[in-house]
Amino acid sequence: MKHKQILLAHGSGGSMMHDLIREVFLPAFDNPLLRQGNDQAVLENPGGRIAFTTDSYVVQPVVFPGGTIGELAIHGTINDLAMGGAQPIGLSVGMILEEGLEMDLLEDIVRRMKRAADEAGVPIVTGDTKVVERGSCDRIFINTSGLGIVPDGVHIDGAAAKAGDAVLISGSIGDHGVAVMSERKGLRFETPVTSDTQALHRLVARMLDVTKDIHVLRDPTRGGVATTLNEIAAQSRCGIEIEEERLPIPPAVTGACDLLGLDPLYLANEGKLLAILPEAHADAVLAAMRELPEGAAACRIGRVVEDMPGIVRMKTGIGGTRIVNVLTGEMLPRIC
Amino acid sequence: MKHKQILLAHGSGGSMMHDLIREVFLPAFDNPLLRQGNDQAVLENPGGRIAFTTDSYVVQPVVFPGGTIGELAIHGTINDLAMGGAQPIGLSVGMILEEGLEMDLLEDIVRRMKRAADEAGVPIVTGDTKVVERGSCDRIFINTSGLGIVPDGVHIDGAAAKAGDAVLISGSIGDHGVAVMSERKGLRFETPVTSDTQALHRLVARMLDVTKDIHVLRDPTRGGVATTLNEIAAQSRCGIEIEEERLPIPPAVTGACDLLGLDPLYLANEGKLLAILPEAHADAVLAAMRELPEGAAACRIGRVVEDMPGIVRMKTGIGGTRIVNVLTGEMLPRIC
Repeated sequence: MKHKQILLAHGSGGSMMHDLIREVFLPAFDNPLLRQGNDQAVLENPGGRIAFTTDSYVVQPVVFPGGTIGELAIHGTINDLAMGGAQPIGLSVGMILEEGLEMDLLEDIVRRMKRAADEAGVPIVTGDTKVVERGSCDRIFINTSGLGIVPDGVHIDGAAAKAGDAVLISGSIGDHGVAVMSERKGLRFETPVTSDTQALHRLVARMLDVTKDIHVLRDPTRGGVATTLNEIAAQSRCGIEIEEERLPIPPAVTGACDLLGLDPLYLANEGKLLAILPEAHADAVLAAMRELPEGAAACRIGRVVEDMPGIVRMKTGIGGTRIVNVLTGEMLPRIC
Repeated sequence: MKHKQILLAHGSGGSMMHDLIREVFLPAFDNPLLRQGNDQAVLENPGGRIAFTTDSYVVQPVVFPGGTIGELAIHGTINDLAMGGAQPIGLSVGMILEEGLEMDLLEDIVRRMKRAADEAGVPIVTGDTKVVERGSCDRIFINTSGLGIVPDGVHIDGAAAKAGDAVLISGSIGDHGVAVMSERKGLRFETPVTSDTQALHRLVARMLDVTKDIHVLRDPTRGGVATTLNEIAAQSRCGIEIEEERLPIPPAVTGACDLLGLDPLYLANEGKLLAILPEAHADAVLAAMRELPEGAAACRIGRVVEDMPGIVRMKTGIGGTRIVNVLTGEMLPRIC
């Protein structure tokens, strides 16, 4: 690009916006649908129910250990589709850029989005770019929306947890929250903690190969494992009991949380899922999850219970039980 | 809502975000899909090709004569689907809110979005809310993405204009741009100009009832009629000739443009479409358009020509011809 920074004219709809699209977005995201240059993508319809989701990404800082806002925007929306059991077929990208944003940074973010989308096998099919004046946004905000197809026989729903179900998690807890927070505070740890940002749709497909009888899938992002389990307990009108000793919290996350005064159960994760399914399928699904890198550390953390509906409780290491509440306040604003 | 302003905690993923969703978004946007409370909506698949589009809205000011950012976000995305010949089946809403945003204003915008979506008959099926610190965005940015179904036999494409085609417009030019600009500058005109924000999918359906042989549809938003016609001329590798005397520019728009130093051909419209179709169908399609309020002032403004491919030219009132270029620079930032 001729310009080293984003100018207001790059969002005007005129020739400079066309330059930006032609020189930055199209070469990176290139595919036949985008190249058509229409205001909408038209996709063949593979049949099956259609999953549709949206997420805006405002993470601060935009670059953090293990990723950037770009990977987050691709993975997060793919994961929201996957949590409905859907296989993604296309993503949209809506950018809001601040006047003065460094063109190098934008190009790096765009390249990372393309790489993440390619690795996931999901094309970016349509997009939009707006530019606002200096001081009217914080460098770059990205919205991605996604389309997916839900296979027949799959009915995953936050309201579907049943007493007796097993509660599984696909891997470690708290990495993304600690990675962003440590970058924000300028902290360096002996064992660096990097974001777990990754796409989970292949893991979900593998799980559904074992059984379509999965009741709930949800990725514990904002609000963390504690808040996500509370949402499910409320939607399903059941209790959930987790066991503190089973929670896969890496020592580096525990250490960082002690230092920062954070509770890992409330930290955002960007590449993990919680699964709730009949106990009878739990071992087979866990074994299948562990075959894939994104599920290698999958484990069981608890079960769904009949009593105390709407409440999440935790059996602690010392033999007690405590209530695990939903997040209150803004422990970590702009974590994703 | 207990709080009169948006707080950071309203975007944290925790209990205050749930309150905001439960007390502001759900009551307004209510429908069975949203009520499920999952991270994705799952829609029945009616068959037909799937149209998918996204647009972020950053208009400043957020309230202007004839509308707000809310109506714009609903109509604009419906129109991007309609310009592919699609009938919309669902919208997503992604909000980025600034800490301190007045709750009353948010509630008003949300109500207007709901009314616009209801009038259009298109449900809001999924959403997301983020909150950023004071000074990190300008009150409210809204992304809407949309899903639609393209009927069999419809192949509308910016690259499909053919020499000999007629160029139609569905109504007056420049209203939205003048409405926003006059509000921004604090100007009051004798004849107030209000935004033309409206949904065009029913107009498109009526046109397609007459003939599926419509080559191009596009709504002249950012960059206006001049830039949109240039995009089509470039994509279709044809020339386009418009006639100045046929352009439906209201006297109030002309007056405001004279005062503000603007050219109506470059002003954004938010409820108008340009249609390019075989001359043989032009009169019948025009007659059908005029049957609907959103097409009542539809007229013919020019034709597609073989010579000067990629160039838009205008026969002026005094008998000359001039080239109509694409917008350069940022005549009107944040117009939508």
